[in-house]
Amino acid sequence: MKEFNELSDFSTIEIDELLKLARRLEERPEPRALEGKVLSLLFLNPSLRTLSSFQAAMVRLGGGTFVISPEMSIHGLESRSGIVMDGGAAEHIYEAIPVIASYGDVIGIRAVAKIENLQNELSDRDFKEYISLVDKPYINMESAINHPCQNLADWKTLNDQNISSSGGKFVLSWSWHPNALSLAIPSSTLQMAAMRGMDVTVLRPDGYELPDEVMNKARRVAELNGGSVNETNDRSQAMEGADVIYVNSWSSVLNYGRQSSEEKFKKELRGWCVDEPWFDTASVDCRFMHCLPIRRGVTAMDRVLDGSRSIVIQESRNRMLVQMAVLHQMLSGA
Amino acid sequence: MKEFNELSDFSTIEIDELLKLARRLEERPEPRALEGKVLSLLFLNPSLRTLSSFQAAMVRLGGGTFVISPEMSIHGLESRSGIVMDGGAAEHIYEAIPVIASYGDVIGIRAVAKIENLQNELSDRDFKEYISLVDKPYINMESAINHPCQNLADWKTLNDQNISSSGGKFVLSWSWHPNALSLAIPSSTLQMAAMRGMDVTVLRPDGYELPDEVMNKARRVAELNGGSVNETNDRSQAMEGADVIYVNSWSSVLNYGRQSSEEKFKKELRGWCVDEPWFDTASVDCRFMHCLPIRRGVTAMDRVLDGSRSIVIQESRNRMLVQMAVLHQMLSGA
Amino acid sequence: MKEFNELSDFSTIEIDELLKLARRLEERPEPRALEGKVLSLLFLNPSLRTLSSFQAAMVRLGGGTFVISPEMSIHGLESRSGIVMDGGAAEHIYEAIPVIASYGDVIGIRAVAKIENLQNELSDRDFKEYISLVDKPYINMESAINHPCQNLADWKTLNDQNISSSGGKFVLSWSWHPNALSLAIPSSTLQMAAMRGMDVTVLRPDGYELPDEVMNKARRVAELNGGSVNETNDRSQAMEGADVIYVNSWSSVLNYGRQSSEEKFKKELRGWCVDEPWFDTASVDCRFMHCLPIRRGVTAMDRVLDGSRSIVIQESRNRMLVQMAVLHQMLSGA
Repeated sequence: MKEFNELSDFSTIEIDELLKLARRLEERPEPRALEGKVLSLLFLNPSLRTLSSFQAAMVRLGGGTFVISPEMSIHGLESRSGIVMDGGAAEHIYEAIPVIASYGDVIGIRAVAKIENLQNELSDRDFKEYISLVDKPYINMESAINHPCQNLADWKTLNDQNISSSGGKFVLSWSWHPNALSLAIPSSTLQMAAMRGMDVTVLRPDGYELPDEVMNKARRVAELNGGSVNETNDRSQAMEGADVIYVNSWSSVLNYGRQSSEEKFKKELRGWCVDEPWFDTASVDCRFMHCLPIRRGVTAMDRVLDGSRSIVIQESRNRMLVQMAVLHQMLSGA
Repeated sequence: MKEFNELSDFSTIEIDELLKLARRLEERPEPRALEGKVLSLLFLNPSLRTLSSFQAAMVRLGGGTFVISPEMSIHGLESRSGIVMDGGAAEHIYEAIPVIASYGDVIGIRAVAKIENLQNELSDRDFKEYISLVDKPYINMESAINHPCQNLADWKTLNDQNISSSGGKFVLSWSWHPNALSLAIPSSTLQMAAMRGMDVTVLRPDGYELPDEVMNKARRVAELNGGSVNETNDRSQAMEGADVIYVNSWSSVLNYGRQSSEEKFKKELRGWCVDEPWFDTASVDCRFMHCLPIRRGVTAMDRVLDGSRSIVIQESRNRMLVQMAVLHQMLSGA
Repeated sequence: MKEFNELSDFSTIEIDELLKLARRLEERPEPRALEGKVLSLLFLNPSLRTLSSFQAAMVRLGGGTFVISPEMSIHGLESRSGIVMDGGAAEHIYEAIPVIASYGDVIGIRAVAKIENLQNELSDRDFKEYISLVDKPYINMESAINHPCQNLADWKTLNDQNISSSGGKFVLSWSWHPNALSLAIPSSTLQMAAMRGMDVTVLRPDGYELPDEVMNKARRVAELNGGSVNETNDRSQAMEGADVIYVNSWSSVLNYGRQSSEEKFKKELRGWCVDEPWFDTASVDCRFMHCLPIRRGVTAMDRVLDGSRSIVIQESRNRMLVQMAVLHQMLSGA
């Protein structure tokens, strides 16, 4: 494997192989598999899980990492093209990325959406530029539109919970959040559930429809795999018989990149904070998923997060386990 | 060993075993003992020695670490209970701690006293809450009232210096410092010296008495081990025949959590900066100990720190060596 | 090897040995050579390449590192002597450096010129003081006047490019930069090229002459090795037949430490930004070198950096490879 960029680049058979490898490495550790191997980690945005889980993953396989992040002790990174660098940033990503990549056997890059230009971000323009500077295997650690490590971890989590792929009901729900957030999680999570062949409902207030290209791609994928994709603003209808609700917030397409319009638009929507009554019509053991970080009392109430429905910690732990499989497949030479 | 929380949880026999292991690992390194093992490091407060020595310790044993700290490139951590997270912090420790713990085989947490509520801090309420979120072995890397890694390193340092346990005279002295500092070092150092069975004198200005529960616990422990605990504000009396002076600053109990009262109260006490004349009545080779960081010219004069009495660098180096023993005993499976 | 402080401490035979070792370690990795060994990294200034390449180097050899930097989560470091530490810094380097060194088998220190006092900085006064606090092998990761890791990497890069040592023409050129920069790179690069026995021309505007001691030392070294050192302000003369141009900015000696005079002085010199016409009289495949970070459109134009002349990424990658050789020779015990 040379690229781990988007879950839908992989067949369900390949995904199963990765998850078998993840299980094998958990049960029978291989602490020398990647000895002397280096994962370069470039974070253009803050992170906790991604930062921790990749470092831990490499230690468990006998290799190591280094981390570069603009908030660290470096000189500031410029990313605009054709610019006269007379400001604060002393280095351009055109040099920084090839240099960082040159020290590793694989590079992970995190560069989330700036929420500025919808078409650029749907096409992952920035991330593609960054990757064009790298001649090594690479891992997408979240870009404007993809988050394959999270998607693979969530796939494993759904398996671990015995939530059926075909016929299982998966609700992807918008939630309130003070900030305008990216489409990466909702969009890539939707594809993931569609690839599993689940019956997926996107639950969101009017105005928070996902872009047509995202919905249409998911519909095609779901159909091929025996599932379906629907959307609604009706919570009790969406939740009826649901096996799992996957919660996230995202910016409305209408106000994409216009923060004050977005703020005004969503003012009345604070009720979109997941609470126990949401589950009244769901299946008894309906699970609650979220990629974290989550704002308590804002995105979901404490009693949901502290209750038995929540499998958010398992999702996070699975991040490390699936990333070990990806790294092993990329670097072990086996 | 599942918990390394407080030195007095261990018998002197167990402490001797740990120190023997520390010596063995120094003399006969075991660079594969912990291969593939991960120590998760969570720093809710700044650190230099703890940060460095734990990372170095894991490398020497063939494992690795990752570090999470709120000053790093993460989203900010909330720790208050039942709060609506509408501010800057995007993640709650209720998620962050289990997630961080889930990536490691052991977790170290540093969360020093906030100097707000004496009873809460004497009972280590916050740290206990953090630990309740962890289902792995853990290490207290300094809490409101404990600092067992420092205590064990200091125990080793006293041994290395051949300072006798029974009959040795140990002075724990208050010193001036611009900030109001925690009771963790004085309190846990006092217990350490008492456990060794030393004759301990707490030297402090009036108003800087340690809390009764701290003094009483130390007196009982000292008695059991053939030592004693006294206190005084009289420097020359305290220092008479002393084998070692252990210096630290701490907040007065009277003004605990009230910074301006505390500042006014200690204004006249700048003379509590250790200098050579302090040692006039001490034993000739009386040692100077401090856990570091130390403010030169404020807590002790340069000539003390640069002189032959000072064993502060040895104390710091012993941090790494004893922590290797703790980690080895927790994780090597031997 | 106990010290890696200055390239001219080594004979060309020793340099060849290090470069052979670098090649061997690249071709036949030794991922257990330094197992259990620790490199302590102290950065008193920001860094990207040095930070990354040393961490990666240690992983590739089976050891590990830890990083301390004042911008991290520590208490602030004081470096002035004889001071009463009543301000923000809670720790003095007099304690911090010995402690950090005590956790490692070797320590790397980065402490670049403050551009305050020319004589102090030419004599590397501060760095020498820091090193006097260390009783372990150490590596100069850039001091006020030296940068041996960069010099050795550049030596390798010139070899990799088959640029002849004797008779090759090396132009060291000043360039514009918004900030007043140190003499470490120009001075140590000049010695490096002189040691190779190249014909070196220092190209700089009037007022940017390098200090006499630097030029004279380089002239002597060049002569011993069959090369030469000249200087000029005439670009086309300097570039005539050049095999390589090595670009850097440095503060004028005249205005050393006086920022506003320096700014006024160099106002008219923005034309010193390397562009294709510079190469009109050079050899056809004249290379462009720079230690990075580089400001695009300021120090060199995009088309130079993105063209085939530029070997800046190779220089940076060679940093890791030569540092592996240095670390291996210091620590492998072979």
